[in-house]
Amino acid sequence: MTEQGTFTRDMHYLPDRITADGRDGWPLEPGRYRLVIARACPWANRAAIVRRLLGLEDVLSMGMCGPTHDERSWTFDLDPGGRDPVLGIERLQQAFFARDPHYPRGVTVPAIVDVPSGKVVTNDFRQITLDLSLEWRAHHRAGAPELYPEPLRAEIDDVAEKVFRDVNNGVYRAGFAGSQAAYEHAYRDVFGRLDWLSQRLAGQRYLVGDTITEADIRLFTTLVRFDAVYHGHFKCNRQKLTEMPVLWAYARDLFQTPGFGDTIDFAQIKKHYYVVHRTLNPSGVVPLGPDLSGWLTPHGREDLGGRPFGDGTPPGPPPDNERVPSVG
Amino acid sequence: MTEQGTFTRDMHYLPDRITADGRDGWPLEPGRYRLVIARACPWANRAAIVRRLLGLEDVLSMGMCGPTHDERSWTFDLDPGGRDPVLGIERLQQAFFARDPHYPRGVTVPAIVDVPSGKVVTNDFRQITLDLSLEWRAHHRAGAPELYPEPLRAEIDDVAEKVFRDVNNGVYRAGFAGSQAAYEHAYRDVFGRLDWLSQRLAGQRYLVGDTITEADIRLFTTLVRFDAVYHGHFKCNRQKLTEMPVLWAYARDLFQTPGFGDTIDFAQIKKHYYVVHRTLNPSGVVPLGPDLSGWLTPHGREDLGGRPFGDGTPPGPPPDNERVPSVG
Repeated sequence: MTEQGTFTRDMHYLPDRITADGRDGWPLEPGRYRLVIARACPWANRAAIVRRLLGLEDVLSMGMCGPTHDERSWTFDLDPGGRDPVLGIERLQQAFFARDPHYPRGVTVPAIVDVPSGKVVTNDFRQITLDLSLEWRAHHRAGAPELYPEPLRAEIDDVAEKVFRDVNNGVYRAGFAGSQAAYEHAYRDVFGRLDWLSQRLAGQRYLVGDTITEADIRLFTTLVRFDAVYHGHFKCNRQKLTEMPVLWAYARDLFQTPGFGDTIDFAQIKKHYYVVHRTLNPSGVVPLGPDLSGWLTPHGREDLGGRPFGDGTPPGPPPDNERVPSVG
Repeated sequence: MTEQGTFTRDMHYLPDRITADGRDGWPLEPGRYRLVIARACPWANRAAIVRRLLGLEDVLSMGMCGPTHDERSWTFDLDPGGRDPVLGIERLQQAFFARDPHYPRGVTVPAIVDVPSGKVVTNDFRQITLDLSLEWRAHHRAGAPELYPEPLRAEIDDVAEKVFRDVNNGVYRAGFAGSQAAYEHAYRDVFGRLDWLSQRLAGQRYLVGDTITEADIRLFTTLVRFDAVYHGHFKCNRQKLTEMPVLWAYARDLFQTPGFGDTIDFAQIKKHYYVVHRTLNPSGVVPLGPDLSGWLTPHGREDLGGRPFGDGTPPGPPPDNERVPSVG
């Protein structure tokens, strides 16, 4: 039964997969597909991080939508002429309509577009990152980490499911709650789960095993947005992230790891949430805070041990055309 | 020149004064007047604190409006039957109309009402507290402090003017800004002044001299609301008060001083701002945070010296019918 006023996310996505064996009709070919993200979006952020960690930049190009949009959804307004330079379109909607002229659902990022046909292959954020790890393996960089290692999958899935329900989507349930009761329910889910995560991470550097996995990536994308947007705009305000010592150190540790912080654009994040959600913020005024200087301070998490990339290595710097402004 | 979108407070109030010599026609008589406040309102909070510190509870009774209201302003909805037990009215507006049937301005608290006639004498929050200190002196409790001592008045006035412009009213200019530019201007005023106050208070316990004065009361009423409403709802989010060490310790010191914290009802404060300002918060959902447990923690400000009440003493506990729920 659904509590009155509860925000419900439409979880129906284009389910095709790009696989090594091409069984859905989308064979894996270097250069054929384009990952479309928005720096603002936490669901797209997962894919941007995994692509960086695995070193897929040269085989899977990336298009970036601007932070704000109207009811027709994401646009390429940051690109010269307002068009994605590879796809040649102004609105991501065009790629969804190329796939299905009557596409009835949300135009969402991340989306992977087949460049030759201009069609969206998939926008299923849950599967995209796993396939980048498993199906695209032949094209990973030397030293790429195992983000979804076979022996840990059940535990990663279990943690990720809890984190999705109570944290990733929990903050949205709080922010878009249509009643006081629905909000309070979501708020308690968020902070109950953050307390559970704080306990889990107090004595271990990463969520599952002793290396960075898919589970960490999924938690990070919400934590990094917490003080900038979820704390105030979504009313998740028991504490700021900066006031939760374990999670704040954990988030800084990941932020300072190559492939994480270099995908984060706080200005775009704030602009997206505060400008697009006029039902929550009618004025569209974007807060100047919070002070972000703490993200680059020492976190001390090395003392817990752990091997960030396992037997692998950190990725190099991002391509020039994907650099975001530093918080430093 | 006014920047586009700047919030401007109507500073015209009923200017009569209750004085020892009765020169405005409102002679000072114990029991004749009723101070009407709302726990939510920072401007009314000043008067509630001063009345407590000076021990005027028995000579100036206090009526309390509830935290929420419609466009006809403050009501006595918390009282049995929805009527103030002394004035017998449901809406504070009735006392303004008793004074002037065509009263054209805002129905605001604090207001002092002449009980026999039911007329508002004054709602000029700037003068009310000073008159409680100076004109009501004959009725102060034994040990009442000097909150506006003659030798320090120029300095108190100077600090209070800066605090009013940039802090007390600055947070409102940020929250109600109608443009990004007006918001950013106000935000910089707020945090610029808070930085200035942090410096000033780093080495001295109180704002002016070495005792509590009117200047401290005026700053306190904004600081105590900062994390509960101004940080998120008004977008004053560079830091929380809890992240500004000097001001946070200063505010806790005052909060823990009899006459300050015992006037604060955080639940009413949050409910007022988030429910009444639907242009800022269309859903009317009231945040569950922030965690308030820090208010009662040690502040260490005694080490700076200072004599809170000068040659006087702290007030006793509040009357039973004026107690508010504890944060402890």
